[in-house]
Amino acid sequence: MKQQLLQRLNDRAAIIGVVGLGYVGLPLVLRYAEVGYKVIGLDIDQAKVDLLQQGKSYIEHITESAIQLAVDRGFEATTDFTYAEQADALIICVPTPLNKYREPDLSFVLDTMDSLIPHLRVGQVVSLESTTYPGTTDEELLPRIESRGLKVGNDIFLVYSPEREDPGNPNFTTRTIPKVCGGHTQACQDVGVALYGQVIDRVVPVSSTRAAEMTKLLENIHRAVNIGLVNEMKIVADKMGIDIHEVIRAAATKPFGFVPYYPGPGLGGHCIPIDPFYLTWKAREYGLHTRFIELAGEVNSAMPDYVIGKVASALNQRMKSVNGSRILVLGIAYKKNVDDMRESPSVFMMEKLRDLGADVQYCDPHVPVFPKMREHHFDLKSIELNALSISQFDCVLLATDHDKFDFTLIEKNAQLIVDARGKYLVRADHIVKA
Amino acid sequence: MKQQLLQRLNDRAAIIGVVGLGYVGLPLVLRYAEVGYKVIGLDIDQAKVDLLQQGKSYIEHITESAIQLAVDRGFEATTDFTYAEQADALIICVPTPLNKYREPDLSFVLDTMDSLIPHLRVGQVVSLESTTYPGTTDEELLPRIESRGLKVGNDIFLVYSPEREDPGNPNFTTRTIPKVCGGHTQACQDVGVALYGQVIDRVVPVSSTRAAEMTKLLENIHRAVNIGLVNEMKIVADKMGIDIHEVIRAAATKPFGFVPYYPGPGLGGHCIPIDPFYLTWKAREYGLHTRFIELAGEVNSAMPDYVIGKVASALNQRMKSVNGSRILVLGIAYKKNVDDMRESPSVFMMEKLRDLGADVQYCDPHVPVFPKMREHHFDLKSIELNALSISQFDCVLLATDHDKFDFTLIEKNAQLIVDARGKYLVRADHIVKA
Repeated sequence: MKQQLLQRLNDRAAIIGVVGLGYVGLPLVLRYAEVGYKVIGLDIDQAKVDLLQQGKSYIEHITESAIQLAVDRGFEATTDFTYAEQADALIICVPTPLNKYREPDLSFVLDTMDSLIPHLRVGQVVSLESTTYPGTTDEELLPRIESRGLKVGNDIFLVYSPEREDPGNPNFTTRTIPKVCGGHTQACQDVGVALYGQVIDRVVPVSSTRAAEMTKLLENIHRAVNIGLVNEMKIVADKMGIDIHEVIRAAATKPFGFVPYYPGPGLGGHCIPIDPFYLTWKAREYGLHTRFIELAGEVNSAMPDYVIGKVASALNQRMKSVNGSRILVLGIAYKKNVDDMRESPSVFMMEKLRDLGADVQYCDPHVPVFPKMREHHFDLKSIELNALSISQFDCVLLATDHDKFDFTLIEKNAQLIVDARGKYLVRADHIVKA
Repeated sequence: MKQQLLQRLNDRAAIIGVVGLGYVGLPLVLRYAEVGYKVIGLDIDQAKVDLLQQGKSYIEHITESAIQLAVDRGFEATTDFTYAEQADALIICVPTPLNKYREPDLSFVLDTMDSLIPHLRVGQVVSLESTTYPGTTDEELLPRIESRGLKVGNDIFLVYSPEREDPGNPNFTTRTIPKVCGGHTQACQDVGVALYGQVIDRVVPVSSTRAAEMTKLLENIHRAVNIGLVNEMKIVADKMGIDIHEVIRAAATKPFGFVPYYPGPGLGGHCIPIDPFYLTWKAREYGLHTRFIELAGEVNSAMPDYVIGKVASALNQRMKSVNGSRILVLGIAYKKNVDDMRESPSVFMMEKLRDLGADVQYCDPHVPVFPKMREHHFDLKSIELNALSISQFDCVLLATDHDKFDFTLIEKNAQLIVDARGKYLVRADHIVKA
């Protein structure tokens, strides 16, 4: 089985099934199609499938022409999971969020597996890409697959290979970001390396699925903790009358042993605020506390409130209350130059300001209309930035420093800027660093 | 005054006084002498002064020929602080340790200042390089200097410029490591940039002495916290049956957003275990807790015990107690390829093992004889490593992985290796990762 599958993968004759057509799955679809594989995309969302079949995109940084090209090369999207049987490889790219008690919510992964199980067959490889705690592949996927009577490592192959997508990063693509891959057995690993070897420049094999799962978590824990640290340092420096951004820039001139991370209004996105707690949850099984993760979570999730406090005190100094003030939030995506609103601290700040009685508007060149979100509702459109519109706000809160903003225009016309990104280097009475 | 001093500095006609001739001051002496300045070295330690006057070195990585060259070019070392008056610049490079309550011990800095004060004169620049909390230069040095009736910024100039020495780093020298410099006034900063501009390739001016003080602390806090994080991750991964070193190597293949730090038996050296607590202490004045620093301190200082636990359990598995076992500690310097023993976790581990009844020996090619230390006493010499000597120990504890060790020889002949550095990639029954 293994040799046959390896052959099909290496010959690009294999059919690649990608399950979950979001920020992770869709770029992978395009990349497999690009090198000549037949690709089947599976998703439960009929709307996405329809758009893809029409060659249309629903992700800002993925062009329609790229999707059209894949479609022209035979890419098919479907909600019909019976297609899974045709695929030689099934790559699972579904969300792994937290529930409201900060516990792993594996429902997307497990529901996907339940949908796939009836269509598994001898000679397939299953790869999980969703970020998750060490042990998920072994403890959750393996028994489900073997319940079909398929022996993993002989009949069918199982790997974990974490996604490392970084939307908006101009320097790296799916192809050029090295891909870590761990197999349940040596044979599984061999197949996994072949699966990705044709589309990714460098595949990094590790000794187990657990090691691969832990690798992805360590990467994002590293970021969450480093951002937590600079956020704490920001608060300390601010009290001491020191500009943390100046300090970070100076420290970054050290050519070894230091790497700059930047403070902000809080963590956002689908990875950094969430992934670390997958380890926290699993560690409890071993009687361990992940104290850095918990501290980072605490510090980072307090940042929106810290920034709102800066807004309130800057307004107060001008004899104004938040209640009744007109406040413009600049940038509501969670990071610069993307349209992704997931877990965006801007949204928390907008709600907080609204609750305090402010008249809140926003401007985001990447988000023209405030989208429907599960837990947040604003009936707003992005306002146009010009001298007049800017000048009419009591406070402009710079939350996400998109390159598309005209920062000089804003500086010249705003009554008051609260800068949560360290964008403004100048010292001016109407600019407050938050 | 300022123009005259700038001229003398830029013409390399100024006399440079370096106060404190240790790991930081001595390289600076050599560098100033190298470019042609007349240098006076001041230290309270007569033994050091005598050695230097004879062209001899007391620091492993500084060669005698380098010192002899400086002496030939007119470098003089002395314990007589009246020489300070001759110097146009006084650069203070003295230790800033913690007392036993983890509070800043500024006594070396303040005693030095007290010795210098009578010899200060118009037209000098005083630069503090010792790592310290934000505000030290303003709050401690400034009033002392002005008590002499000298107006800082007019008569005399005051800067803070943190040392960034990294002994044992083959890629960077005093000259090529960019130097941050903050002045008490703009004139002070101008003089500071001139002071260092002739000997350091890149001087990085910052807006205040506080910003410069904070910069150095942030650099070392960053390291302490990142090492704390991987140490915590090591414990978690170990319990989950995952090799953290494999995970770090895999994560390090991510070309953005991740930087590898490595776990070990604890922090050592004169910077990373100490410096962060300078900020912790100062932050209390502002009612703030530096929680990441405190957590990192707690986790890192628990690591020697963690490693000893691994030694005990590995011996126990072999039906041996620590009590009565012969244990060889490899590497007692605090980091690889240096001879620096300050705060070395190896020493704590040796004491712990001795207290538990082990017969402890050590081998360190950089430390032939166990030095006299204020709080630690071992009457030991570094043993010779060969097949026979290695095989006679019940356990070999790899604490510091100097390149000079023959790791294959050790692996082949040791009964048991406890590897606290992740040096051994192989899986073998007699190698335990700690």
